[in-house]
Amino acid sequence: MTTAIANTASPLFLSTHHLLDHWQGHRKLTRRVIEAFPDDQFFDYRVGEMRSFADMMKEILDLSAPGLKGIATGEWPASDGSWNHEAKKVAGSKKEFLELWDRATEEINAYWLLISEDRFQETVLAFGQYEGKIYDTILYFIDNEIHHRAQGTVYLRALGIEPPAFWNRD
Amino acid sequence: MTTAIANTASPLFLSTHHLLDHWQGHRKLTRRVIEAFPDDQFFDYRVGEMRSFADMMKEILDLSAPGLKGIATGEWPASDGSWNHEAKKVAGSKKEFLELWDRATEEINAYWLLISEDRFQETVLAFGQYEGKIYDTILYFIDNEIHHRAQGTVYLRALGIEPPAFWNRD
Repeated sequence: MTTAIANTASPLFLSTHHLLDHWQGHRKLTRRVIEAFPDDQFFDYRVGEMRSFADMMKEILDLSAPGLKGIATGEWPASDGSWNHEAKKVAGSKKEFLELWDRATEEINAYWLLISEDRFQETVLAFGQYEGKIYDTILYFIDNEIHHRAQGTVYLRALGIEPPAFWNRD
Repeated sequence: MTTAIANTASPLFLSTHHLLDHWQGHRKLTRRVIEAFPDDQFFDYRVGEMRSFADMMKEILDLSAPGLKGIATGEWPASDGSWNHEAKKVAGSKKEFLELWDRATEEINAYWLLISEDRFQETVLAFGQYEGKIYDTILYFIDNEIHHRAQGTVYLRALGIEPPAFWNRD
């Protein structure tokens, strides 16, 4: 009841439909950045103490569709360490990794439909430990993807490869 | 009239107030990333063909407050080349640059109040050349800041400096 009142009283910056489009646009660009890496450098190249781009993108896989599933259904992945963060243990090649990426894209679209429109202003305990508004939690997933993708573009430049255009989300 | 109908009919993902908070939270983090650079490396360090972090942050200065001023007032900066993109020509030191950053923070807050709540779903021709919805244009400013800031964190790592925590926006 309170949520419904808040929804009609709060001035709209962005609708739920447009946010999903915005996110999927970013995911298309991220997919192109993954594709731009040579296979071995995707899993092995790193700067200083940083992770490989594959391990960063594994984090995005671990957060995005599972996070949205958690928001939609209340079911969160186990936090007992069974949730493996190493990209090489879930995908032996970039091709396999991209298949996981594409599956996550479909899952995000499907789980989105299960979140009723008045829930985005509610509070959630994401992954059993991060408390926040649902809109803020989802923005965190997207911002984190932009952040790590951008780090990947520096890896590409250091490897002498021109990254895909930032503005293109088609 | 159409806009008003769209506003009440569109399910709310994010209100205009929360988006401004979200943006200013990102700007606090970006300010800390600027501060983390040694003075000379801020203006001079670069990877491959990339720009210095100062020049990237100059782009953010050029887009954010002037972009919001344009949206609020219809006045956009001249696109005749008088708009200088080199950070060193507008700030001789990191301290001066941070003063420009803080002024932009205040300007963003001030111009935000001048944008009436029903305008965020309207279309704008930003900087006389980029057509898009106002919400999308503002998201572009923020995403672009996250993107270049993240590139700066790789510069910091390559310089052996631990970047400020991504999740902290206070």
